[in-house]
Amino acid sequence: MNFEGIYTNYKNDLINDTLPFWVNNCIDYKDGGFNFALDEKGKIFDTDKGVWGHGRFVWTLSTAYLDIQQNPEWLKLARHGLDFLKKHAFDTDGRMFFSLDKKGNPLRKRRYIFSEAFMVMGLAAFSRASGESKYAQEALALFRLMDKYLTTPGLLPPKYTDHRQSKGLAIPMIMIVVAQELRKVIDDPLITKWIDHSITEIENDFLKEEYKAVLEMVGPKGEFIDSCNGRLLNPGHAIEAAWFILHESKYRNNDTYLRNLGLKILDYMWEWAWDLKYGGILYYRDVLNRPPTEYWHDMKFWWNHNEAIIATLSAYQMTGNKKYARWHRLVHEWSYQHFPDKENGEWYGYLHRDGSISTPIKGNSIWKGPFHLPRMQWYCSLLIDEMKENGVPQ
Amino acid sequence: MNFEGIYTNYKNDLINDTLPFWVNNCIDYKDGGFNFALDEKGKIFDTDKGVWGHGRFVWTLSTAYLDIQQNPEWLKLARHGLDFLKKHAFDTDGRMFFSLDKKGNPLRKRRYIFSEAFMVMGLAAFSRASGESKYAQEALALFRLMDKYLTTPGLLPPKYTDHRQSKGLAIPMIMIVVAQELRKVIDDPLITKWIDHSITEIENDFLKEEYKAVLEMVGPKGEFIDSCNGRLLNPGHAIEAAWFILHESKYRNNDTYLRNLGLKILDYMWEWAWDLKYGGILYYRDVLNRPPTEYWHDMKFWWNHNEAIIATLSAYQMTGNKKYARWHRLVHEWSYQHFPDKENGEWYGYLHRDGSISTPIKGNSIWKGPFHLPRMQWYCSLLIDEMKENGVPQ
Repeated sequence: MNFEGIYTNYKNDLINDTLPFWVNNCIDYKDGGFNFALDEKGKIFDTDKGVWGHGRFVWTLSTAYLDIQQNPEWLKLARHGLDFLKKHAFDTDGRMFFSLDKKGNPLRKRRYIFSEAFMVMGLAAFSRASGESKYAQEALALFRLMDKYLTTPGLLPPKYTDHRQSKGLAIPMIMIVVAQELRKVIDDPLITKWIDHSITEIENDFLKEEYKAVLEMVGPKGEFIDSCNGRLLNPGHAIEAAWFILHESKYRNNDTYLRNLGLKILDYMWEWAWDLKYGGILYYRDVLNRPPTEYWHDMKFWWNHNEAIIATLSAYQMTGNKKYARWHRLVHEWSYQHFPDKENGEWYGYLHRDGSISTPIKGNSIWKGPFHLPRMQWYCSLLIDEMKENGVPQ
Repeated sequence: MNFEGIYTNYKNDLINDTLPFWVNNCIDYKDGGFNFALDEKGKIFDTDKGVWGHGRFVWTLSTAYLDIQQNPEWLKLARHGLDFLKKHAFDTDGRMFFSLDKKGNPLRKRRYIFSEAFMVMGLAAFSRASGESKYAQEALALFRLMDKYLTTPGLLPPKYTDHRQSKGLAIPMIMIVVAQELRKVIDDPLITKWIDHSITEIENDFLKEEYKAVLEMVGPKGEFIDSCNGRLLNPGHAIEAAWFILHESKYRNNDTYLRNLGLKILDYMWEWAWDLKYGGILYYRDVLNRPPTEYWHDMKFWWNHNEAIIATLSAYQMTGNKKYARWHRLVHEWSYQHFPDKENGEWYGYLHRDGSISTPIKGNSIWKGPFHLPRMQWYCSLLIDEMKENGVPQ
C-alpha cells in the first residue's frame, strides 16, 4: 500500500467546507428551491433558478446522506429541492424547463434533455436516501421519456440542418452516469442497454485512434467533421467519460475490456489536457492543432479539474500504476493551490490560464453549483476508503 | 485646427493592409463566397461560411469602392459575395440562414434577423457602388421583411417565456445603421421611421440616468430586470450605438438633441469601458457592480476597440472637446500597441485582459472578418478628411 502524496481529506472537506457553504447560503426558504448564484462570501447576486443545478444538488445531498454521513438536514434539503422541481420544473408535455425565476415561473426551455438527466439522478438518489420507492418509479418513468426523445427521430430538434448531421459526446456520457445512478435503486433492462450502448458509441464513434483523442462532435456514424466544432476537444469532458467507464469496469468485477478503454481515454486526453506552461487542465484544444476559436479555450475551470482528480485516482486505485498517482498529485496540487477560497470556503470556479482569478463567484444560476466539487470529494473519499481496505494493486 | 496626436493613416491601412489581407486569402473562387476563418498568416482553418460575414464584406468592399478608391476588383468581389448569398443564403420563407457549408448548403438558421440586416447593408452599398438599382429594391424589400418580423408579435420566437418579457439593445442599434445605409440609396418613409423609433427606444428604454449606463436587455417598456442578463453592460456595444446617433445628428444638420444624446452615451459608457488597470475596453460589466459571470468579461476584443476609436473621434470632430481627443488617443494607442500583426497584417481579435494574445486567428467563420476594422478605417478616414476641410470646432 502506497498512499504517499495521495491527499486523503476529501471527506472532511465535503462535510466541513463544501456542503456548509451551500447549505448556509443557497436555500430559498421563502419561494422554494435554491439560489446557486453566490458571490465570494456566499451572498446571492442573482435569483434565477437553473433546473440542472436543482437536480444536481438533490443528488449531491442524497448521496452525501447515503455514503458520507446520515445528516437529517441534508435529506430534508434534498426533499426541499425535489418538491420545488416537481412543482415548477415540468412542462405540460412531460419534459422539463431549463431555467425558472425565483418564484418558479418558467423562463427558458431548451432543446436538449439535460434537465431531465439531472432530475433522474436526483430522484434516484433521493429514493434510496429516503427509502421512498415512488421516487425510483418516477426516475424510471422520466428515464423512459429521455429514451423516447433520444431514440425517436425528429422529437429533439437538431442544432444543424440535415447538411451537417452530427451527434455530441455529451449524450452518451450523461446516459452512462444517469443509468449508473438509476441502477442503484431500480432494475430495468433499459438501464444496462443504455450503458452498453453509450460506452460502445463512445469507443466506436468518438474515440479516434489516429488522433489519440476523443472528439466532442462527430457525424451520425462517427464521421470526422473537419470544422472547428468537429475538431474540438474538451479534454476534461472526455476524462469525465473515462472515469464513468472505469466505474463501470469496477461494477462489472473489474471488467478488463472496460478498464482498458477507460485508461486509454484518460491516457490520450491527459496529453491534450495538461497545460505544460502553467499547469492545470486546458479547456479546449483542436485535434489538428489549428488555432482555438472558443474565447475561454485557455481558461482554467473548476469542474474539469474535479473530473481529472477523480479519473487519475480511480486509475491509480485500479492499477497501482504510479503514473496515475503522479498525475493525480499534479492535478490535485495545482487545483488546491488555485481554486479553494481559504477565507470564505468552497472553490472559485473561473481562473485565467495562469491561475489568477477571473471572477470570484462561487456559483451562478446555471452552471457552477454544489455538484462537481462535492461529487469529487464524495467519490475520492470512497476510493480512499477502498484503498485503505484493500490496498492498491501493485 | 488641432490634429496633434490624432492618427491620420486610417485610409492607408485600409487600402494597403486590411483589404489586401482578406482579398488575397479569403475568396473562394471554386465554390463561391468567402472563407473568413483565417489563421495568423491568412491560411484557412475552417470552411464553414457565416452569412453575417458575407453581407458585411459585400458592404465593406462596396463602401471602400465608393468612398476610398474605385478599385474594380473590390466591386467584382462584392458581386462575387452577393451572388453567393442570393444563391444559397435564403430559406423558402424569405428569411435567411445563419451559416452555410463550403458549398453553400445551409447549416443553421437562428431566430433573430441579423443575417437579413447585414444583407440589407450589403445590397444597399452594392447598389450604390454598381449603379444597379435593382439591388436597392431588393434591399428595401428585405428591410420590409425585417420590419414585418420585428413588428408582428409571435413571428420571431422569443428567447424567454412570457414570464421574462425582454428586448435587447442589439435590435434598435442594428436598425439605425441598416436604415442609415439603406437611406443612402433609396427613399422610403419606413427608413426614417425606424431610425427615429430606434433612437427613441434607446433613449427611453435602455439608457438609465440613475446608473449612468445603457443596458443590454430591458423589459418591453424599459423595465429594469434585476438578473445577471438584465444588469449586463457591454460598453463597446453601447459606444457603437453612440456613434450611430452622432452620425444621425450630423446627417440632420448637427441636430443638437441627437448630438447631446450620443455624447451622453459615450460619456457614460466610457467610464464603464476603460480598463483602469491594463488599459483597453473591457467586454462586460455589471451595472450594480455585482461579480461578472460571462467567461470573457475581462478579455479585450478587437471590435469594441474599433467602435470606441470611431465614437471618440466623431465626438472630437463634432465638438472640439479635447477630452474626446484624449480618449481617442488613449484607445487608439492601446489598440495599435496590442492588436495589429505587424508581420502578417490585419489585427488579432482576441486578447487577454493584459493585452497578450489569446488566439492568433485573424478571423473565424461567424464573428471576426473584414467588417469592424475596415469600417473603422473607412469612417475615421472620412472624419479626418472633414477635419482637414473644415477644421475642428473649438
